Amino acid sequence: MATLHGLNFVGAALRKSGRTFSVATPADGTPLEGRFHMARPVDAEEAAEAAAAAAGPLARATGEERALLLEAIADEIVALGDDLVRRACAETALPEARIVAERGRTAGQLRLFAAVAREGSWVDARIDRAQPDRQPLPRPDIRRMLLPIGPVVVFGSSNFPLAFSVAGGDTASALCTGNPVIVKAHRGHPGTSELVAGAVRRAIERCGVHPGVFSMLHGEGSVVGVQLVRDPRVRAVGFTGSRAGGRALGAAAAARPEPIPVFAEMSSSNPVFVLPGALAERAAAIAEGFRASMTLGVGQFCTKPGLLVAIEGPDLARFRGLLAAAVAATPPASMLGDEILAEFDHHRDALLAVPGVRLLSHVDGADAACTQAGAVLAETDAATFLAHGRCADEVFGPMSLLVAACDARELHAVAAGLSGQLTATVHGSAADLDGSADLLELLAGRAGRVIVNGYPTGVEVCHAMHHGGPPPATSDARFTSVGSAALERFVRPVCLQDLPPHLLPPALAEGNPLGIERLVDGVRGRH
Amino acid sequence: MATLHGLNFVGAALRKSGRTFSVATPADGTPLEGRFHMARPVDAEEAAEAAAAAAGPLARATGEERALLLEAIADEIVALGDDLVRRACAETALPEARIVAERGRTAGQLRLFAAVAREGSWVDARIDRAQPDRQPLPRPDIRRMLLPIGPVVVFGSSNFPLAFSVAGGDTASALCTGNPVIVKAHRGHPGTSELVAGAVRRAIERCGVHPGVFSMLHGEGSVVGVQLVRDPRVRAVGFTGSRAGGRALGAAAAARPEPIPVFAEMSSSNPVFVLPGALAERAAAIAEGFRASMTLGVGQFCTKPGLLVAIEGPDLARFRGLLAAAVAATPPASMLGDEILAEFDHHRDALLAVPGVRLLSHVDGADAACTQAGAVLAETDAATFLAHGRCADEVFGPMSLLVAACDARELHAVAAGLSGQLTATVHGSAADLDGSADLLELLAGRAGRVIVNGYPTGVEVCHAMHHGGPPPATSDARFTSVGSAALERFVRPVCLQDLPPHLLPPALAEGNPLGIERLVDGVRGRH
Repeated sequence: MATLHGLNFVGAALRKSGRTFSVATPADGTPLEGRFHMARPVDAEEAAEAAAAAAGPLARATGEERALLLEAIADEIVALGDDLVRRACAETALPEARIVAERGRTAGQLRLFAAVAREGSWVDARIDRAQPDRQPLPRPDIRRMLLPIGPVVVFGSSNFPLAFSVAGGDTASALCTGNPVIVKAHRGHPGTSELVAGAVRRAIERCGVHPGVFSMLHGEGSVVGVQLVRDPRVRAVGFTGSRAGGRALGAAAAARPEPIPVFAEMSSSNPVFVLPGALAERAAAIAEGFRASMTLGVGQFCTKPGLLVAIEGPDLARFRGLLAAAVAATPPASMLGDEILAEFDHHRDALLAVPGVRLLSHVDGADAACTQAGAVLAETDAATFLAHGRCADEVFGPMSLLVAACDARELHAVAAGLSGQLTATVHGSAADLDGSADLLELLAGRAGRVIVNGYPTGVEVCHAMHHGGPPPATSDARFTSVGSAALERFVRPVCLQDLPPHLLPPALAEGNPLGIERLVDGVRGRH
Repeated sequence: MATLHGLNFVGAALRKSGRTFSVATPADGTPLEGRFHMARPVDAEEAAEAAAAAAGPLARATGEERALLLEAIADEIVALGDDLVRRACAETALPEARIVAERGRTAGQLRLFAAVAREGSWVDARIDRAQPDRQPLPRPDIRRMLLPIGPVVVFGSSNFPLAFSVAGGDTASALCTGNPVIVKAHRGHPGTSELVAGAVRRAIERCGVHPGVFSMLHGEGSVVGVQLVRDPRVRAVGFTGSRAGGRALGAAAAARPEPIPVFAEMSSSNPVFVLPGALAERAAAIAEGFRASMTLGVGQFCTKPGLLVAIEGPDLARFRGLLAAAVAATPPASMLGDEILAEFDHHRDALLAVPGVRLLSHVDGADAACTQAGAVLAETDAATFLAHGRCADEVFGPMSLLVAACDARELHAVAAGLSGQLTATVHGSAADLDGSADLLELLAGRAGRVIVNGYPTGVEVCHAMHHGGPPPATSDARFTSVGSAALERFVRPVCLQDLPPHLLPPALAEGNPLGIERLVDGVRGRH
């Protein structure tokens, strides 16, 4: 096992501080190696200064140079081998197969963004050439492209120690578009964070990139995190976590003299609507599929299905029994940490305390160290659901609420009453779906992703993915944190008017030296 | 002249209220025809309800249907003929040629968005097809497109009674993408607003579109405007006006339980950097060009150049004399209204009161009614400019500040000290420009549009235009309010996973029935 130094990565430097913390494995409380240094205000200052110094050089780097950096980071992460897997498993209590899969996803994500950087068309180049003879006034030459915005602060998430952390999707999309990154490492997995940060630094050295493009600090989000969000050199923030955390960062960013965007992916109940035909045809399969999705990773996914909505009747009665039995047969497992387990207990109990909500099925934690959470299925009727906003709130962990509607109209009312969601799912027979255009349209208005006959967990990293949704699921319905469109968060357009040809950036130059897709005088093509 | 009813357009209805106001021509205080009804809270309620009812039908309308509506609006506005021109001139004191040109721009803008709606590729369709045999897990079919967001509130601006008002760029881009519009008419030109609203309504009737797609209300921005921004049915806001107004609307929108974006284009000083070679080669031409741009429309453009930065020396001394003389020879003219004139006087005096700022040249208003503003040129040195934030603030009206730097380093410091701007301009000889890569890069980081050897007034409506810029120029550096990219403000992506083929919207269907540009499995084309 690699030795952990516990220091903060401040550009090219490693910095210690007077205050340290350590972590224990959530599975049984065994203390883990490493004392991690809480970053001081001066460390955040210097990280921001280093990022600002690196912004110009990284913005001027070619797409190929950025692609090589992203690929080198992927290679270095994979090269960490079992050390990384072991440490991540120990810090999160997630099983090895999950961490190995997440490492593959993280490397694949970095390589996807490398391909996007290398190809280069993401700059959305648009050229409207001069018309010197136009009447009544000549038209100037106008060219527009997307540019990086500058240093981005990324908050590591608790539940994806690799894919949404130090070198996850936020970091990859920021670097792809030429923005330096400062990571605030999550408190729950500092050793994993240090290993990945070391991999990033080795990649930076190998590629000869300005060392200010990457820093990583340990510490409290509400202290060093907020300091970074307020720093005038920082231009955007990526965050995956709680609604309270996302809102606090958003408020800090909005209160700056020059506000900056905070892209916060916060909470979602991911409702699943099971229509009558599906309930009749596939009750057992849906019960098992839903159970597997709601308990995957101990329910610690932002896309965990927290609501199941169906219409009362004999088929739902049968389904209810199947699902309750499946939930009761699911072994309990350790959550990511004490605080997350305590939050789960709190929100579970609050939901069960709503008048009209009843417990259908549950499993108790079974370990002596009391780190486990058991799956919980509760039930209520649509009227209660609609009357108590608490029923629609996310419970982070392995709990779902079955909502029984008395008819299709009431099922629609539940859908219409939903606030913004990351996902919404419909299970239906062919006949159900043919009659569901209204429901699908309604859900598309409330969720970032609408799924038919599937489950919301499992978010593909691809061009067409939209992992977002209207508030309060995220802070901004227009942006995704997964897939190649995630880069749109960290860019801004600039228009160049009548620049001498030799001063134009290559993306906007005559002859299209980069060979990218451009919109020239309204016509799209590689010209 | 058409008779004005003064009523509020609430969907298909016309509504009066107990409180009315009238306007006078700013040029000489002559009362103008028409008593305009201040919308009541119930009118705003009903307009929002009508817009919400129209949102579904308009979202489902084809691109061709939306294009026909936009073209019909353009036709109906042009068909208003001299009535519209006369009323707009009377309400704004802008000259006839300007209003005629602005009408052309407004119709052209509507037709540009019609073409974009008809062509259809704006939905940014992306398809990643299923890979059922992928290991370790199959990949689902994932398709993503942009959808309209719902009712948009548009605040008419004072300085563009046609192009940024009732049927201006905000309305055109919202309708193009399928969003109903509620206009809060500007208090300064209610008659012009009524005429245009009537044209929009006739177009809606002619095209058989849901009448809820358009409402227009008279009243105070801080009352009926804020009510609309807070209405839960409203999904976005477009605003062109003061920094205080934009920030107040932004705060109201952010305080909603489900916050919505406010696209506010607020203020900019539009600095012009005149480099030594240009000063030596073209002093007279630049002095005249700058004067014309700063006094165009009595300086009432968001892109009015309010700062001119150059390096001290004999060439600047000569230029200073030429510019001062040109300013002194500019006839005064009536501003858009009393309040705007009073604001101009206030901000002009505040700038002149900054220690180290001196008056170089000015013209007095010459009319008995005291509605005119004369051009004003002030001067300071770079050290004073950098020490007093007030020097960089916009003065809305015909005033500019010449900033003399002692050398190139100080000129760069002035550029580096700028906050977000709509535009930044560089005048340079060929040799100047060859040495200006750093300055151009610096300005591209602070302005939405960088202009070489031109003037910032005159904003082309085209695909490559970016009329925006970092805060405080606008509320969001990523979006433009002019040009076809302005539609990006009123859309959000939605991802559809594993939908049965026959339930896919045409933009995402197999075989590409709309023939639009799409990104299919990572390859762009009309496939």
